[in-house]
Amino acid sequence: MKNTFGNQLTITLFGESHGSAIGAVLDGLAPGITVDEERIRHQLALRRPVGSISTPRQEADEFQILSGVFEGKTTGTPLCIVIPNTSQKSSDYKASYGKARPGHADYTGFVKYNGFEDYRGGGHFSGRITAALVAAAAIILPALEQKGIYIGTHLQSCAGVADRAFADINKDIAKLNQSLFPVLQEDAAAAMRAEIEKAAADGDSVGGVLETAVIGLPAGLGEPWFDSMESLLAHGIFAVPAVKGVSFGKGFALSSLRGSEANGSLRYEDGKVVDEANTNGGILGGITNGMPVLINTAIKPTPSIFKQQQTIDFIKEENAELELKGRHDPCIAHRARVVIDSICALTVADVLTGRFGTDYLTMAK
Amino acid sequence: MKNTFGNQLTITLFGESHGSAIGAVLDGLAPGITVDEERIRHQLALRRPVGSISTPRQEADEFQILSGVFEGKTTGTPLCIVIPNTSQKSSDYKASYGKARPGHADYTGFVKYNGFEDYRGGGHFSGRITAALVAAAAIILPALEQKGIYIGTHLQSCAGVADRAFADINKDIAKLNQSLFPVLQEDAAAAMRAEIEKAAADGDSVGGVLETAVIGLPAGLGEPWFDSMESLLAHGIFAVPAVKGVSFGKGFALSSLRGSEANGSLRYEDGKVVDEANTNGGILGGITNGMPVLINTAIKPTPSIFKQQQTIDFIKEENAELELKGRHDPCIAHRARVVIDSICALTVADVLTGRFGTDYLTMAK
Amino acid sequence: MKNTFGNQLTITLFGESHGSAIGAVLDGLAPGITVDEERIRHQLALRRPVGSISTPRQEADEFQILSGVFEGKTTGTPLCIVIPNTSQKSSDYKASYGKARPGHADYTGFVKYNGFEDYRGGGHFSGRITAALVAAAAIILPALEQKGIYIGTHLQSCAGVADRAFADINKDIAKLNQSLFPVLQEDAAAAMRAEIEKAAADGDSVGGVLETAVIGLPAGLGEPWFDSMESLLAHGIFAVPAVKGVSFGKGFALSSLRGSEANGSLRYEDGKVVDEANTNGGILGGITNGMPVLINTAIKPTPSIFKQQQTIDFIKEENAELELKGRHDPCIAHRARVVIDSICALTVADVLTGRFGTDYLTMAK
Amino acid sequence: MKNTFGNQLTITLFGESHGSAIGAVLDGLAPGITVDEERIRHQLALRRPVGSISTPRQEADEFQILSGVFEGKTTGTPLCIVIPNTSQKSSDYKASYGKARPGHADYTGFVKYNGFEDYRGGGHFSGRITAALVAAAAIILPALEQKGIYIGTHLQSCAGVADRAFADINKDIAKLNQSLFPVLQEDAAAAMRAEIEKAAADGDSVGGVLETAVIGLPAGLGEPWFDSMESLLAHGIFAVPAVKGVSFGKGFALSSLRGSEANGSLRYEDGKVVDEANTNGGILGGITNGMPVLINTAIKPTPSIFKQQQTIDFIKEENAELELKGRHDPCIAHRARVVIDSICALTVADVLTGRFGTDYLTMAK
Repeated sequence: MKNTFGNQLTITLFGESHGSAIGAVLDGLAPGITVDEERIRHQLALRRPVGSISTPRQEADEFQILSGVFEGKTTGTPLCIVIPNTSQKSSDYKASYGKARPGHADYTGFVKYNGFEDYRGGGHFSGRITAALVAAAAIILPALEQKGIYIGTHLQSCAGVADRAFADINKDIAKLNQSLFPVLQEDAAAAMRAEIEKAAADGDSVGGVLETAVIGLPAGLGEPWFDSMESLLAHGIFAVPAVKGVSFGKGFALSSLRGSEANGSLRYEDGKVVDEANTNGGILGGITNGMPVLINTAIKPTPSIFKQQQTIDFIKEENAELELKGRHDPCIAHRARVVIDSICALTVADVLTGRFGTDYLTMAK
Repeated sequence: MKNTFGNQLTITLFGESHGSAIGAVLDGLAPGITVDEERIRHQLALRRPVGSISTPRQEADEFQILSGVFEGKTTGTPLCIVIPNTSQKSSDYKASYGKARPGHADYTGFVKYNGFEDYRGGGHFSGRITAALVAAAAIILPALEQKGIYIGTHLQSCAGVADRAFADINKDIAKLNQSLFPVLQEDAAAAMRAEIEKAAADGDSVGGVLETAVIGLPAGLGEPWFDSMESLLAHGIFAVPAVKGVSFGKGFALSSLRGSEANGSLRYEDGKVVDEANTNGGILGGITNGMPVLINTAIKPTPSIFKQQQTIDFIKEENAELELKGRHDPCIAHRARVVIDSICALTVADVLTGRFGTDYLTMAK
Repeated sequence: MKNTFGNQLTITLFGESHGSAIGAVLDGLAPGITVDEERIRHQLALRRPVGSISTPRQEADEFQILSGVFEGKTTGTPLCIVIPNTSQKSSDYKASYGKARPGHADYTGFVKYNGFEDYRGGGHFSGRITAALVAAAAIILPALEQKGIYIGTHLQSCAGVADRAFADINKDIAKLNQSLFPVLQEDAAAAMRAEIEKAAADGDSVGGVLETAVIGLPAGLGEPWFDSMESLLAHGIFAVPAVKGVSFGKGFALSSLRGSEANGSLRYEDGKVVDEANTNGGILGGITNGMPVLINTAIKPTPSIFKQQQTIDFIKEENAELELKGRHDPCIAHRARVVIDSICALTVADVLTGRFGTDYLTMAK
Repeated sequence: MKNTFGNQLTITLFGESHGSAIGAVLDGLAPGITVDEERIRHQLALRRPVGSISTPRQEADEFQILSGVFEGKTTGTPLCIVIPNTSQKSSDYKASYGKARPGHADYTGFVKYNGFEDYRGGGHFSGRITAALVAAAAIILPALEQKGIYIGTHLQSCAGVADRAFADINKDIAKLNQSLFPVLQEDAAAAMRAEIEKAAADGDSVGGVLETAVIGLPAGLGEPWFDSMESLLAHGIFAVPAVKGVSFGKGFALSSLRGSEANGSLRYEDGKVVDEANTNGGILGGITNGMPVLINTAIKPTPSIFKQQQTIDFIKEENAELELKGRHDPCIAHRARVVIDSICALTVADVLTGRFGTDYLTMAK
């Protein structure tokens, strides 16, 4: 389905970095979700560049909801949200077209679209499009939260610096969702920022690993085979630019444990089923077990760097050298955080809608 | 779509471990693919238990093709392949029903299916069902290979022992696909087997990480957003039981590199575009660039171990202890290898069909 | 999705007329539906040839359920039902291959499948495959009926003879579902049979129009645009061989009325909303209004006739003459009736599952 | 998929009659289709009200393409086209909310959306939304035409007056697509207009039957079962408001013929396969045979009439009387014509893309 994701609740993305607007259509929303425009703005703010460790390109991200909302609530019909592009500088792109930026989709996009792609600023491949994803997901967050479902992500590691693990997850999520630089431990945050600035000073960039927690999901969600919760979440997360790895619970580290260490153990606690170690990250056999769903996402270093690079010119069909100019992020892992939250929100809202019906996420009148 | 995967070429899986049969329906196959029953048997043999490091349960895996093949070739209509179950021992399961095996889907399946699940031997969650997946994929492998597309997987690491990296990938793949224990380096293979046997002697189990290469794919496959090649491949791979992590190229390790190390560099070599480092595993912006697609898959240790474990009885709703008996694998990572190959084959065949049309994979008359 | 139909509850069909078996996979079934094998046999019997007005080919229609049922109830996992073919006479087909039977899919199938199609007895195009559809749908009928939803179809007209309209729909449906020749008015039934036999004596065939009623559906099902109830039902019904028209309520006749005649009028009656004229057949804006859903289906005359016909030989690429031999139905409209009931049952079960969640059709333990 | 239609080439519709805008997203377009804005305007003009026989509401239908087009050509990424609403008069709707207009979706929409629907002017159910469908389809018409595929529709009958049948289809289509009132025979056109005006004078409305021809399609398109060409076309057409019947070729009339009359006969003519009678409307076994695809669509009389009608007030839950005021069409069949053309264009473009791959509809550079 290309640019559409979901089964019962779908999101369709459109737009290019330097086109007139980007946007998203949500379809299959429960009627009666209160649309909180302040929340949309807040979520968009979490995605925007952060001072010295981000690109100086600033977009106002003024959104317009074109359909699907009436008197402040979702109607249940498709909701189209649009964000005009305002800060494009398109003039330079024509001259450099053909020189593939290493680590970017310039060459692959050229082959896929037979040379008809909008190459300005990454076109449809641009991280800019995630603003529409974030805005759309912000509409369903309050509906999830009324069901006790909360989502938060921190920078588990960045440029070799590690954050502490989730502890009191509820509080950690609350704190992260108010924080522009999503790190749980303050000295880790400072060390990460320092490393990002150092890389920026070198004309280079860094990556990071995000850890996401989704709490409050009921047990029994997902499918045993192709729509396992892991399959659905990974499908969505790998759509986010720069993601190169996704794992659940202890992830790759599980592979080097023995079964007796990896299994965890179940017990009833106040009538609830608990697996304290939660090594499997809340999913067994593709299906939630009621524990927090824990997801690790590997974000590669921003491919836009200011060093000279060897590459090709696919128009001239010859080898070439490239030195980028312009506005680029030395790290996008912290900005990607709210995008991962958003795609997780869309995924679980879709699964809940499929399991419990189209009215499940409606809110009290 | 629950138990169906793919857009233009779909696979639907059915069956339970102790039901009468398991099977798969392939739909959207090109007409005119020569069905190689010997190849199907070969692929199934790669999945079957291997001597002392696997379960003693042996299934003949005699398959029957019920439809979609005429005079030895695919017709283009749905192909149903069925594998009868013959080696079930179902009698014991009733007594232990309710005691959730840690690391298994017993409890999550119970919640999802409201107690109507076939609990014998894992039911529909059983790794047994992957035999149908492997058999189905074996039908399209020759069609991919005539296009120059080959797929192979090795045990990159197992129980703390590492294999060498892919070197001459063509030859490595050829060797792996003839090998019951898919390790490139012989001493590594011996050391892994020793570790697996040691774990088995302890009544315990181990996991591993698989590395898969898909070579010969044209550039330009995949979509920028939700159907990125990573999204599609990860969706399929995470459907395989025991998979807890998927990454591409250098994967999680990319996150701790700087951009200048992670980007790689493009050049023309004999008219072909080459990225020697291939850090991104053949995919940029969700789209293939013509380099080998490299995938890492984390397989957790088999959850069935012979140690006493704390758990719950979800029927009696009380805490319980559990000590498994019966036939279990101390490691399934080597057996999972052909399952990963199979799901990759199905995924790329689907994408090729979407890109080039329904006749693309047909074979010469 | 080619041979798969449905969104939340899907059916996948496979098989060829002269292959080893035909079958279907149902996915997305609620767990806990009691599988009534007697009912399956009953529904299959309604589809089987009827004495002198049908083909002498008799199939035992012995079905096997391979998966998805445990202790007599659906598990919620994919249910595969298979019906072996037993009465094939394949030898003659090779000789006549290439001579396209007018009104059949011989030529179109040849072009679509590039000559790889199983041409014996219509192959995958054969009406025989509908037996699998009927068997699969029979599994969900009891689940619909416990919710008060009943489906029945009569031959509204056949060979120029008209049946009476539905009157007391509940009773009419009950009667039809016990009747091999589904006509409400006895003298009409006799006259139709006479016409069919007359056509058969002429080596010719006749068609008919079916009228289907689905009663007991709640208001509010369906979507305003592409998944309107009419869209979904018509999609399924037009998949049935020989169907060339589908309409709802007064259908084509509505087009020649004035709005004041066509609109009907709403009123509350014992707290229920009623539209007595029900000109729109229970669907407005694509969504059910709680009145019986009324569907008309045009079935063309069986294309297999025993008269000499002009046609082409698409292998020799020349004009040809054709005179069919063998076993053929002079009318299939009465046999198609249970196929239409079945596809309607699958469609409404799918829509109900999407609206109310995956457990909606479960039955009491 | 609710508001999305298609497999490889999809359209997603959004918007409400009195919201800020309506629009559509096309995804899966071939890159390199020249976007002809004049053609979009022309197609929108064919849909707009026609003098005395239509509503006086006039919308400028100024469209904006937000994405997916670069330098005048499609890029292959999602194309979002938006049409702002400008001529809304929303004030009156609140007062009359609850009084269900007979023949409209007021009551069914209320039940479906639990009272959260945008009720102004039919909201998301409004025929207004078809403007977005028409604009979107206009983008692919030139791509179809370069392949020799043309689509046209005439009013076969309206208010009891019949048009002549298609004769020289190419010429007829060319003429229809330049004509605001799509009737082939001039005296029939005049008589129909007179009948529409008579109905309008009575405060009443009329319907009609449309006949659509799609010419130039290659043989071999469509699927034998659930994605038969009839299934796909009917699915799309029944999504159009006021459609209550769809048939192919001779349609319902086929049911009363004998097989010998209904079958037609095939012959080679200048190397092409021809079925002159084309009783089956170019589709056999769900698959095109290369003859013109012929579709009949029954359009009911506009439900908005100016007579007093019995109905319910579903807010007050009591019986009510209703007399509409405002701007309404006494007939929409002629305006629906271009909507049917559009959905047919989208459907065949989708099927062609699936069969021949994503570049099939690209146009020369």
